[in-house]
Amino acid sequence: MERVDCLFVGGIVVTMDTAFNLYLDGAVAVRGDSIIAVGVSETIIAQYESDAVIDCAGKIIMPGLVNAHTHTSMTLLRGLADDRRLDVWLMGYMMPVERQFVSPEFCRLGAQLACAEMIRSGVTAFADMYYHEAEIAAAVADIGMRGVLGETILKFPAPDAESYEESLAYTRRFIQDWKGHPLITPAVAPHAPYSNTDEILQICTSLATEYDVPLLIHIAETKLEVENSLSEFGMTVVDRMKALGLFAAKVLAAHCVHITPTEIPVLCDEGATVAHCPTSNLKLASGIAPIAQMLKGEVIVGIGTDGPASNNDLDMFEEVRLAAILAKTAASDPTTLPARQALLMATRQGAEALFIGDITGSLEVGKRADLIVIDAEPLHNMPQFNRDINNVYSRIVYASHASDVEHVMVNGRWLMRDRALLTVDEAAILKAAQAVAVQIDRFLEEREGDVLSKLLAIGGIEQSESFEVQVKARLNDESFVDKLLKRPDVAVVQSIHYRQYDTYFLFGDPDSGRVRYREDDRLGDDGEIKSVRTRLTFTMPTKERAFHQTILLSHSRFIANADRPLRFYREYFRPSRELELHKDRRRWHILYQGVLFYVNVDRVISPQIHGTFIEIKSRTWSANDAEIKADRIQEMITFLGISEADILRADYLEMQTDA
Amino acid sequence: MERVDCLFVGGIVVTMDTAFNLYLDGAVAVRGDSIIAVGVSETIIAQYESDAVIDCAGKIIMPGLVNAHTHTSMTLLRGLADDRRLDVWLMGYMMPVERQFVSPEFCRLGAQLACAEMIRSGVTAFADMYYHEAEIAAAVADIGMRGVLGETILKFPAPDAESYEESLAYTRRFIQDWKGHPLITPAVAPHAPYSNTDEILQICTSLATEYDVPLLIHIAETKLEVENSLSEFGMTVVDRMKALGLFAAKVLAAHCVHITPTEIPVLCDEGATVAHCPTSNLKLASGIAPIAQMLKGEVIVGIGTDGPASNNDLDMFEEVRLAAILAKTAASDPTTLPARQALLMATRQGAEALFIGDITGSLEVGKRADLIVIDAEPLHNMPQFNRDINNVYSRIVYASHASDVEHVMVNGRWLMRDRALLTVDEAAILKAAQAVAVQIDRFLEEREGDVLSKLLAIGGIEQSESFEVQVKARLNDESFVDKLLKRPDVAVVQSIHYRQYDTYFLFGDPDSGRVRYREDDRLGDDGEIKSVRTRLTFTMPTKERAFHQTILLSHSRFIANADRPLRFYREYFRPSRELELHKDRRRWHILYQGVLFYVNVDRVISPQIHGTFIEIKSRTWSANDAEIKADRIQEMITFLGISEADILRADYLEMQTDA
Repeated sequence: MERVDCLFVGGIVVTMDTAFNLYLDGAVAVRGDSIIAVGVSETIIAQYESDAVIDCAGKIIMPGLVNAHTHTSMTLLRGLADDRRLDVWLMGYMMPVERQFVSPEFCRLGAQLACAEMIRSGVTAFADMYYHEAEIAAAVADIGMRGVLGETILKFPAPDAESYEESLAYTRRFIQDWKGHPLITPAVAPHAPYSNTDEILQICTSLATEYDVPLLIHIAETKLEVENSLSEFGMTVVDRMKALGLFAAKVLAAHCVHITPTEIPVLCDEGATVAHCPTSNLKLASGIAPIAQMLKGEVIVGIGTDGPASNNDLDMFEEVRLAAILAKTAASDPTTLPARQALLMATRQGAEALFIGDITGSLEVGKRADLIVIDAEPLHNMPQFNRDINNVYSRIVYASHASDVEHVMVNGRWLMRDRALLTVDEAAILKAAQAVAVQIDRFLEEREGDVLSKLLAIGGIEQSESFEVQVKARLNDESFVDKLLKRPDVAVVQSIHYRQYDTYFLFGDPDSGRVRYREDDRLGDDGEIKSVRTRLTFTMPTKERAFHQTILLSHSRFIANADRPLRFYREYFRPSRELELHKDRRRWHILYQGVLFYVNVDRVISPQIHGTFIEIKSRTWSANDAEIKADRIQEMITFLGISEADILRADYLEMQTDA
Repeated sequence: MERVDCLFVGGIVVTMDTAFNLYLDGAVAVRGDSIIAVGVSETIIAQYESDAVIDCAGKIIMPGLVNAHTHTSMTLLRGLADDRRLDVWLMGYMMPVERQFVSPEFCRLGAQLACAEMIRSGVTAFADMYYHEAEIAAAVADIGMRGVLGETILKFPAPDAESYEESLAYTRRFIQDWKGHPLITPAVAPHAPYSNTDEILQICTSLATEYDVPLLIHIAETKLEVENSLSEFGMTVVDRMKALGLFAAKVLAAHCVHITPTEIPVLCDEGATVAHCPTSNLKLASGIAPIAQMLKGEVIVGIGTDGPASNNDLDMFEEVRLAAILAKTAASDPTTLPARQALLMATRQGAEALFIGDITGSLEVGKRADLIVIDAEPLHNMPQFNRDINNVYSRIVYASHASDVEHVMVNGRWLMRDRALLTVDEAAILKAAQAVAVQIDRFLEEREGDVLSKLLAIGGIEQSESFEVQVKARLNDESFVDKLLKRPDVAVVQSIHYRQYDTYFLFGDPDSGRVRYREDDRLGDDGEIKSVRTRLTFTMPTKERAFHQTILLSHSRFIANADRPLRFYREYFRPSRELELHKDRRRWHILYQGVLFYVNVDRVISPQIHGTFIEIKSRTWSANDAEIKADRIQEMITFLGISEADILRADYLEMQTDA
C-alpha cells in the first residue's frame, strides 16, 4: 500500500481529461501538491491509503473552475453604479472613484474578498488585470489560489502610476519577483488597444516574450472600439494587433465580442486565446460574442466573470450556464455548445486559455491537485437520469449552483472544507470592505450633492470668473443695427452667425447652479453650417446690480469642451428638469469709441418667442470702468431707438419658463 | 398595543408598492393571512406586539417572487435529454415519456418537488400548465403555495385524456371544485394556438369567461410557429387569437418571443399579459423576446422559469437577473430594464400578469402575507453602497442567489424558516422522485438499446415483411434493356425515373439493423423534378438463400413517410456511422410471361461506382413460386447478355464500404 496525503473516494469523478473519463464510483489520490491517481474507487483504495479519506458519496469530484477574466479588487466597487451606460459608468463613476481610492491596501483587500467569493463558488484559478498587482499576488498566494495576474498598463496616468513608463518598470519588477512561484503566474496587461499606443503595445509584447509570461488584454469589447480602430488605423482590432506583432506573446484576449469571421483564424493561427464574459457583455449591452464560430475555428476559449462591478458577482456556475444557453440562441441551434463543451471551457480549456493547461484544469495524474467537491444531489438537481453517464455534465452546467460547492483544494492545500473557508478570515475582510464602501459612499455623496463637484470629477473643466455690464432689449427695427455698425465711431472686429441649441439642466435647489450644454453651429454667408462646437457651462446663480438701465453682472462659470454626447451628461447629472432653447444669433465684436463691446442679435426659434432681441455687453473690472461702459451702452441703446419699456431683465429661459 | 400573529422587524423592507416605498430599518406586521402594517420598525413596534417577533437585522424583507410560467411536474423530467433540438426533445423524449409515465401520482409528486424547490428559492406564487391539474392543485394547496393552475388542452390525445372534449369536461369540474380557494386559482390552459383548433380555442375562451378564470397559453414561442400561422391562417399568432375572440378571457401568454411591433398594442389593448421565460428561450434557441418594447407599450409582463425540463431549475433569482441583462443587449442600451423594473416584473407586475395582483405581489396593508426574508449581506453581495437607498434593487437583482433565501411565508403561513421546509417532507419526495427517474431510465434504456423501439416511439410506422427473389448484375450494354422491354412477351406496366438520395444510419451492433432515410425525386421526361417523397425505412438484417444465380431474400421492414427533416432523425437516432448514396434509377414494372417483375437500372453517382447496374426482382410467397420466378429471372438475365461473372451479391452500400 502506498501512502498518500488525501484520498477522495466514492464520488462521481468528472476528470475533464482528453478522453472525458468519468467514474461513477470514483476516487482521486493526492500527495503533496499533485494528483497521483484517478480512477475507480475500488482500484484506488486497493493501492493507496491515507489518514485523510474523504467520503464523497452523493457528490461530484471535479477540477476547480477557471475564471478566465476578472478584476478582483473591483469587488470593492460591486454595485456602485448599475444600469448606466458604459461611458457614464466608467468615466463618471469607476475612474473617479479609482483615482481617489485605489491603493495597495485597497487592491489587497479587494483581492482577498474576491478570492473568498471565488473559493465559495468553486473557482481554483483565475486571470486578473488590475493595479498594484504585486499586492494582489501576495494576497492570492497567501490565500492559496492559482492566479495569472497582470499589471494594467495605460497610455494615460493610472491609479498606481503617473505614466506608462512607471507601469512598465513596475511590471518588470513584478515579473522578476513572482516568476516561478508555484501558484502565481505574473503577466503583462496592456489594458486595451484603444487605451495604449502602438509603442506601448510593442514594449509590452517584448516584455512578455522576454520573460515568457502571458499578455492579458481587452479586445473588441464594443462595436465602437472596432469602428474607431477602422477609422483610425484602417484595420480591425485583431488585425491591428497582428500588424503590431502582439501575438509574438502568449495573448489572452478578453471579450472578443465584435470580431469578424476573418479574425477568428488569425486568433487561432497566432495561438491567442479568448476569455468569454457573457454576463458582463449582456449587462453593459456590449453584445454577444461569436463563441460557436470561435470554437469551430479551434480557438481556445475560456469563460470569465469579468470584474464584479459589471457582473455583479464572481459566480462561474452562472457564467458557464449562461455561456451555454446564450450560444444556442446566437446560433439559432440548441445543439450548439452542449453542456460538456461548456464545462470544458470552464476547466481544462480555461486553463489552456490562461496558458497553465499543463498543470491544471483537469483531474489527471501529474497535474496539480486543484479540485472541488460539489453536492450531486441537491433538491434543485433532482431527480437524476443515469442511463447516459454523460448526463452528469448537463446536471453540472444547467442546474448546479455555487452554493452546492462543499470542498475546495488548490495545489494540494485545503481552501474550503464543508463550506468553511480555511485560509481567509471572512468576517475581518467583510468588515474592512464595508468600511471602504462607507468612505466611497461619503466621497460620492459629497460629489453628488454638489453639481460643481460632479462636474469637476469628470475632468477637463476650466474656471472663468467675470464681471460684465450688459443690456438686453426687444429690438423693434433691425435696420438700426446696420446703422449702428456703419457709424464712423464703430469698428466691426468680428462678425459671426450662429444657430445655437442649448440644453439646460436644472436641479431641485436653485442654489445648485445650472449646467448648459450648448451646440454652436457656425453658419456661412450661404446659411450652410461651417463648423460645430459643443460646450458645457456650469453657471452658479448670477449676482447682479442695476446701473441706469444697464446691469452689472458677476458670473462664476466653469466651461469645458463637451467632448461626450449630451446623453452622457444627462445620465451623469440626472437633472430634476431640462429646458431646451434654440436660437439664431448674429454676433459682432465691435469697438465703439475705442471700447470693445459684444453685440448679439437673437431670434428665439424654439420655444418660439415673438420678436428680435439685442444684447450689448462688455467685460469690466472696476466700478468706475463699469459706469463708463454703462454710459456707452446707454448711448447705443438710444441710437437704436430702444425705449425703457423695451428693456428686459429676464433671460430667454425665464421668458420661456413664464410662458 | 394591537396584537398580531407575527412581526418582522429591523430589516430592509422592499415593499414594491406603487410608490416603491423602502424602509432601511423597516417592519411588517402579519395577522391571519394578511399584512396589516408596513413601515419604519420604530413606528410598527410602538403600535403592534406579537409572540413571534422575527429579527431581520442584516436581511431584506420583500414580497415573494412570482414565477409566471412553469410546468411544475416536469421536475420529474429535469435533464432528461438536454442539448437537443426542440422537435427531438419534444417528440423524441418528452412526449413518449409523458405518454408512458404521466399519471395522477406523477403529477402530484412532480408538483411537490417543484414547490419545495420554488420555496427554497423564494417563490411564493406561480402559474402552472400541465396534466391532472386537480392533483397538482391538491399538492400545492397542501404545501401552502399560491398557484394559478391550468389544465392543458390539446387537439390530439393528451396523457390524461383521450380527446379534447374529455380535457374540457375535466377543466370544468376542476374549476368548479377549486374556484374560491384561498390559494388556488383554477385556469383553462389550451396548450398553444398551433396545438388546438379554432373551435377548441373558442370553447376554452367561453369556459374562462363563464367562470371568470384566467386562460393560460403559449404564444409565438418559435419563429416556425409564426411562419406556420402566417401560411395557414394568413395572420400572425396574436392577430389570429384576436380574430378568434380569445382576449375576451383574461389571457396570460407565455413566451411571446416572435411578436411584431403591431402585436404589442393588441396585447395591451386587449388586457392580455405576458410571461417572459429568458432561460428557456435561450436554451431551446427560440430567440429573445422584445421585452423592452412590450414594457414601453405598457403590456404587463411577468417572468417565468418555464418547466424544469427546459431550464433546468426553478430559480427565479437567476431568471430575473437574466431578464434584466438580456434586455440590455437586445436593446443595445445598458439603461434598459434597470434592476427595480426587473424586480417589479418578478413581484407586483408578475402577480398582475397572473391576474392576482389585487391580493399579492407587494408588501401592502390588506394584501396577503406572501413574503420572503433574504440574507442582505452574503459574501457575494458585499460590500454595499448605501448613498442611494435604491441600490438595494441592484443588489437583489444582480447578485442575490436563491441560496440567500432564509424564510418564506405564504398567506400568513410559514413554509420555510431558517432554510428548513416546514410543509414538505423533502427526503420522502426526493426518494420517490428518484424512483420515478429510475423507471424512466429503464424505459428509455430499453428503447434506446433497440433501434426499432426508438423508431416505434415516434409513431407513424408501418411494418412490412416480404420475401423476394432477386438478381443484381453489372450491365455491360444498356441497349439490351430496351430490347427486353420490347419483347412481345413483356408488357410494361409502369415506367419511372428517379434520383434517389439515401442516407443510411448504421449502429455499432450490426444486429441492430439499419435505418435508411430516402429522398425520391421523381423526374419527368425533361429531366425536371416532378415530385419529391421522403421515406424512412428500418431494415433488420436480411436473410438470404441462393437459387441458381438468383437469391431469395427475406426482408423485415418498417416503413414510414419521413415527415421530419433528416436532421431530426440524425439527432434522434444518433447513429454510430452514416453513409450516403446518391443514384439515378430508372424503374419499370413489367409483366414477363404474365408475371410481375420490377426492373431497376441504376447508375450510382456518389460515391461514384463505375458502370450501370440492373436489378430484377419479384415478390414471392412460397418456395415453389420462388423457384419458378428464379427461372424466369434467369431467362431474362441470359437475354440481357449477362454472364455469371457480372452477377453481384454485394449491395451498393457494401461496394462503397469496400471501396
